[in-house]
Amino acid sequence: MSRPIEVPLAPECSACIVSSLKTMIPLLTAEPNEQFEMFRLAYKRISEGYDKGLTPVVLSISLYQELYTRAGVEDPYKQIKYESTKAALKTLPLIEERLRGLEGKEALDASLAAAITGNVIDFNTAAHSPDLDRLVETFDEIRGEGFHIDDTEALWSSLTSRTGDLMYLADNAGEVLFDIPLVRLIRSLGWRVIYVVKGKPMINDATREDTTGTELETLADIIDTGGWAHGVPMEWVSREFLDAVRSADIVISKGQANIETFPAIQQQTGVETYYVTRAKCPHISAAIGTEAGTNVVMRRTGHVVPK
Amino acid sequence: MSRPIEVPLAPECSACIVSSLKTMIPLLTAEPNEQFEMFRLAYKRISEGYDKGLTPVVLSISLYQELYTRAGVEDPYKQIKYESTKAALKTLPLIEERLRGLEGKEALDASLAAAITGNVIDFNTAAHSPDLDRLVETFDEIRGEGFHIDDTEALWSSLTSRTGDLMYLADNAGEVLFDIPLVRLIRSLGWRVIYVVKGKPMINDATREDTTGTELETLADIIDTGGWAHGVPMEWVSREFLDAVRSADIVISKGQANIETFPAIQQQTGVETYYVTRAKCPHISAAIGTEAGTNVVMRRTGHVVPK
Repeated sequence: MSRPIEVPLAPECSACIVSSLKTMIPLLTAEPNEQFEMFRLAYKRISEGYDKGLTPVVLSISLYQELYTRAGVEDPYKQIKYESTKAALKTLPLIEERLRGLEGKEALDASLAAAITGNVIDFNTAAHSPDLDRLVETFDEIRGEGFHIDDTEALWSSLTSRTGDLMYLADNAGEVLFDIPLVRLIRSLGWRVIYVVKGKPMINDATREDTTGTELETLADIIDTGGWAHGVPMEWVSREFLDAVRSADIVISKGQANIETFPAIQQQTGVETYYVTRAKCPHISAAIGTEAGTNVVMRRTGHVVPK
Repeated sequence: MSRPIEVPLAPECSACIVSSLKTMIPLLTAEPNEQFEMFRLAYKRISEGYDKGLTPVVLSISLYQELYTRAGVEDPYKQIKYESTKAALKTLPLIEERLRGLEGKEALDASLAAAITGNVIDFNTAAHSPDLDRLVETFDEIRGEGFHIDDTEALWSSLTSRTGDLMYLADNAGEVLFDIPLVRLIRSLGWRVIYVVKGKPMINDATREDTTGTELETLADIIDTGGWAHGVPMEWVSREFLDAVRSADIVISKGQANIETFPAIQQQTGVETYYVTRAKCPHISAAIGTEAGTNVVMRRTGHVVPK
C-alpha cells in the first residue's frame, strides 16, 4: 500500500482562490457593484471555509458554484476554452513532429512530456495567441528535465504486459488536445481508453464539448464525472463515474485538481493509478513529495482501510 | 491646468492586495493558525474598505499597518530588500555601459529608461539572483518601445532652461539604484536633488537604510516622507515633507504608488511634476490614459481649486 495523498488547506490557498476570481468575476458580470458584492461574498465564504477546515478544492468549488448560480451564467469560460482549443489544435502538430519515429518506452516518455506540456501552458489567462515556438521549447525542456517523480517504467510495464480498460481523467480545455499522442499510444498497445471530462462547466476544465470533433472521440470512449466541479471530489461525482472507476484496470489522472481529489477514490478502489502533472502549487507538490516546478508521473496502488 | 489623476477602487484591487499577502504574511509569522487569522482579518478589512470606498492604496496601507503591528515586526521585507539592493548593485554597471557616451536629450531618455528598468524588474518576489543579461535586455526593450506617454521634451526643456530644487520621489529598495544615472544627469545640469524615501519600512519601499553607502548619498539630499506608507498619501506624510514639496521647483515621481498618491499633493501645490513609471496595473494605466505594459513619462502642472 502506498502513502495516501492529502492536500491540506494552507493559509495562502485563499490568495490563489481570490486570484482566480480576478478572471472569473468579470466573466460573470460586468456590473461593478455586483463585482464588489461577489468579492465580498468570496471573502465571507473563505473565512467560513477556514473555520470548517475545508480542503482547498472543496472550498473553491462551493464558492464557484455559488457565484455561477448567483450570476445565472452557465459557462463563463466558454470563450476562453474555445480560444484554448483553437490554439492547441494549431500547435499540436509541432509537438507531433517531435514524436514522429519514436518507439517503445521512448515514445511513452515523449507522449507523457507532451501531456505535461499541455498542463504547463496556461491558456486560462489572456494568452489567446500563445507563442508556438515557445510551446515546442517547453516540450523540449520537459524532455530535458525528465520526471522528478518517475514511475514511467512501472507504467510501461503495465501497459505492455496486459490489456484492459484504461481510464484517463482529463484536465483543462485545450490542454486535452496534448493528451492525444499518449491516448493514441495506449490504444495502439491494445487498451480501451475511457476519457473522462467534467459533467458541467467549471472554470476552464474540459467538458464533452471541448473534445467534440477532435481525434479523442475516435480514440476513446468519452464519459463525464457527472460532477459540477474541477477535479473529481467524491462529494460531487456521479455513481456512474464511480462504477466506471471500479471497472477500470488502470487510471491516468492528469493535473493538479485530480491529484487533490482522485486519491480518496483511488484508495477505496485500489485501482492502479498514475498521476501525471506539472507540480505547480507548493502545497500540492509537498503533499506528493516533490518540489514546485517539477514533472511528475507517480504510481499509487492499493486500498486504504478506513479508520 | 491638467486633468487630475484619480485611481478608483475597483473590485479586482482586493485580489491584488490579497495576492501581496501571500508574500507578506509568511514574513510576519511562521505560525499557521496566526497566518489563517491574518488572512481572515484581511478579508474583513477589505470588505469594510469596500463599504467606505477607500482608495486601493489607503486600503492596503491601513491593512498592512495593522498586520505589522499585530505581528510586532518592524521590517518584514528587510532580507528581500537587502537582496534586492545587492542584486541591483551588481547589475547597474551593465546598464551604465549602455549609457556611456550618450549626451543631451538622448542621455535623458536613456536615463529615464534605466529608471523604468528598475521599476520593471520585480526584486520583490523570490528573484534573488535576477538574470543579468535579461535585465540589460529589459533596458534595451524599453529603449526600443519608447514612452507611450512622452513628456520628455518638456522635462528636458525645464531641466536645461533653468535650475533649482528637484524632488525625486523614490520607489522600491534595489530599484533606487537604477535612478542613479538620471539623478547624476540632473545634478550635472546644475540642479540640487532632494531624494525622498519612506519614513518607516512599508513593504519593499526604500527607506534611508536602502540608500546608505550608495552614490545617491553623494548626489542628493536624502529626506523621507515621514510616513509609514508606500507612496505619499496625504493622510500619512509629515508636514516637513509637504513643506519640502512646496519649496521644490520640479518633482519626479517614480512608480505606481506615487502616481496613486502624489497627484493630490501636486494639485494643491501646483508643482511641475513628471510621473515616471512602467504602467503595470490596468486601473492605474486607465487613470493616466494609457495601457498596461507601457512606459510613461507624464507631465502635470497647475492647481486644482477645491470644490
